[in-house]
Amino acid sequence: MKEIPYKIYLDEKELPKQWYNLRADMKNKPAPLLNPATMKPMTEKELDGVFCEELVKQELDDKTAYFDIPEQIIDFYKMYRPSPLVRAYCLEKKLDTPAEIYYKFEGNNTSGSHKLNSAIAQAYYAKKQGLKGVTTETGAGQWGTALSMATAYFGLDCRVYMVKVSYEQKPFRREVMRTYGASVTPSPSTLTKVGRKILEQHPGTTGSLGCAISEAVEDATTHEGYRYVLGSVLNQVLLHQSIIGLETKTALDKYGIKPDIIIGCAGGGSNLGGLIAPFMREKLRGEADYRIIAVEPASCPSFTRGKFAYDFCDTGMVCPLAKMYTLGSNFIPSANHAGGLRYHGMSSTLSQLYHDGLMEAVSVEQTSVFEAAEYFARTEGILPAPESSHAIRVAIDQALRCKETGDKKVIVFGLTGTGYFDMAAYEKFHNGQMQDYIPTDADLQKGFDGIPPQPEE
Amino acid sequence: MKEIPYKIYLDEKELPKQWYNLRADMKNKPAPLLNPATMKPMTEKELDGVFCEELVKQELDDKTAYFDIPEQIIDFYKMYRPSPLVRAYCLEKKLDTPAEIYYKFEGNNTSGSHKLNSAIAQAYYAKKQGLKGVTTETGAGQWGTALSMATAYFGLDCRVYMVKVSYEQKPFRREVMRTYGASVTPSPSTLTKVGRKILEQHPGTTGSLGCAISEAVEDATTHEGYRYVLGSVLNQVLLHQSIIGLETKTALDKYGIKPDIIIGCAGGGSNLGGLIAPFMREKLRGEADYRIIAVEPASCPSFTRGKFAYDFCDTGMVCPLAKMYTLGSNFIPSANHAGGLRYHGMSSTLSQLYHDGLMEAVSVEQTSVFEAAEYFARTEGILPAPESSHAIRVAIDQALRCKETGDKKVIVFGLTGTGYFDMAAYEKFHNGQMQDYIPTDADLQKGFDGIPPQPEE
Repeated sequence: MKEIPYKIYLDEKELPKQWYNLRADMKNKPAPLLNPATMKPMTEKELDGVFCEELVKQELDDKTAYFDIPEQIIDFYKMYRPSPLVRAYCLEKKLDTPAEIYYKFEGNNTSGSHKLNSAIAQAYYAKKQGLKGVTTETGAGQWGTALSMATAYFGLDCRVYMVKVSYEQKPFRREVMRTYGASVTPSPSTLTKVGRKILEQHPGTTGSLGCAISEAVEDATTHEGYRYVLGSVLNQVLLHQSIIGLETKTALDKYGIKPDIIIGCAGGGSNLGGLIAPFMREKLRGEADYRIIAVEPASCPSFTRGKFAYDFCDTGMVCPLAKMYTLGSNFIPSANHAGGLRYHGMSSTLSQLYHDGLMEAVSVEQTSVFEAAEYFARTEGILPAPESSHAIRVAIDQALRCKETGDKKVIVFGLTGTGYFDMAAYEKFHNGQMQDYIPTDADLQKGFDGIPPQPEE
Repeated sequence: MKEIPYKIYLDEKELPKQWYNLRADMKNKPAPLLNPATMKPMTEKELDGVFCEELVKQELDDKTAYFDIPEQIIDFYKMYRPSPLVRAYCLEKKLDTPAEIYYKFEGNNTSGSHKLNSAIAQAYYAKKQGLKGVTTETGAGQWGTALSMATAYFGLDCRVYMVKVSYEQKPFRREVMRTYGASVTPSPSTLTKVGRKILEQHPGTTGSLGCAISEAVEDATTHEGYRYVLGSVLNQVLLHQSIIGLETKTALDKYGIKPDIIIGCAGGGSNLGGLIAPFMREKLRGEADYRIIAVEPASCPSFTRGKFAYDFCDTGMVCPLAKMYTLGSNFIPSANHAGGLRYHGMSSTLSQLYHDGLMEAVSVEQTSVFEAAEYFARTEGILPAPESSHAIRVAIDQALRCKETGDKKVIVFGLTGTGYFDMAAYEKFHNGQMQDYIPTDADLQKGFDGIPPQPEE
């Protein structure tokens, strides 16, 4: 057996040439997006007004297993990919576990996360369509940063609606986006009709992702030459993110490593969906089995406590309905929730897989997440994003279980990004000011009350 | 000829096993450190009270060309090295230059810079000597962060004196250090005698590197089991940083690339000294010729406008005297100077090489540096540290000159780090609030007045 290095770097020639579309191998396909006015599946034409044409094709196609990655996207990928698959030798040693731990590290680019993988694809298709620019929303700021980098590369205009609380607490994220030429507006804003309405109904609100989405969609659909792009949840995003899993699998195969457990954090599902794609493929085809664990915050528990239902994707209800595990489009995590993973819903694809018992989900509380983050930073060097640290928490827990049982399991997790713009949250943690918060059933019920009547089966 | 990838990654097995000591090949050796009381060269014994024993040996040895890198340091290096040598294809294309541009990127680790290369070495020797901990100073915060990571790895205590203005303007840098378990004190502080004295003489001072050094040295020399460590200027640091140049040369040799111009930013000289080491070796031995350019801020121009003289390394004058290009130990760059590269002196080794005409130096103004930084970020993706952007500025200028002349020069520069903790400076730049500052001759004279009488030749 070959000696496994600390970091497995694939050669640039080994960069995947195609994205993998998980839906092609699913027997139970994710439910289609519905037009809330007619409760009928959204047509390509309806979606073309909101999204770029080619992206709509990708969004709706649940048959084609592989999509060629355009040459210009591959060129961009080469600036920061293939990303390393790291053998966590130091972590294993410190935990004194018989488990082997690997993590796919997506933080070695200026956006600081995996989001760039889809941002560059979406910017490419916008450019190809001859658009002037794109609009989007951002919460923690990773997606907005990634999109700014991608649009700068293709010379497109980029208008970002940033959840107001993040805009105020993360001025430096905003400056990174400005460095790449994006304009950043705190949401809700007075620039859009929906923003003005939300401000009127909820004066003093600090915003939410669902609300910023509504504004970005309105901006795109009311300006010539603009389209809306989204960093997670959608099928197209999972398609682009499959590059994470494809690289991971190639790297593991190269050394003959078979994972037992694959772990990823889950907000809207982009990283997890990408990481597990080729492994889930084998599972769906009965070629191999893996334990797959989604980790979400206890304060925003869409998988573990949400309902599997058609729901709005945004607060302003301007978007199509998606069938997913949801907490209701009005659900906003408690103010003491730090970091991302705050979306009320979850990718339809992952929701269907979870519903079909093909993956598990656990929720973790944030102080234990930051404990894991600090432990990891001191051991493996990298200071992780709070989002990624959800996966670290569960990877450590699984490795410690192996220590008890003596099992030599192979654990792979997604280290989606770095926490360099999350130091205010770390500071709270260091100062003992961080609190956990688990919504009560009554809290959740308020969100559920906003879920619309379901279409007839 | 082999196709050159975007990023040349060496294999972990190609990690250098030895550091290279540039002084061994210098005919004119750098002048020794002097004891300010006796004006005689500092002895090993005298230095042992301040620095770790093995580091003192490295500091004083100007004969041994190669030092073995201990296994445990190599293990740590493997967590983030070999670092990539990047072919700046996108930058070349955008500049439309016939020049080939490469940069050695040292920012892909949580400390965000090359400083970790020496931090881990110094922490290792401290651990080996059985010390409890180390003290140091930090300005922009890169060195303090690097040292915190290194001491966390070896379980050592770490006490950082952070220049007060940085401590206040960069709370997030401080939190990163705290994440790694370091204690961080704004300097000047009331914890040390020298700090109290400086506060008395200059009430309301926002501190300087020279002052923080004095405090850290006093802390180390007055506490059992502690030694002082420094992130730049010293010979030992240049020795450890030679890994940058050794990897760069191995990567270039692998593809048969011969650089014409090598460019690095210069504050105390750690990155530049490391990057050029193996190239300067060939130059000193008459085996090859390279144009080597040090880039410094116009607001802190030690090479280009300083004096080559014995001077104090710190404000409190508790350190030995070093012969170097200096602006005087009381020199403090104007308050509008952003980022690092603010030390009043320069590595003795580099000073001697510059004095002997073996390298050039230029100074650049900060708005043009930030223009280059933003241009680079939008083109190559990576958001650079202000320090590193000094090298980018001159690399771009040289590439544009090639465009005029049609020369196909090969340019290599050091991209020492990322600017994720420097967004306040970027914000100033975006808002048009950044000013340039060039000290007048009278400004400089005040600093020169503090240079002590020189020893007799």
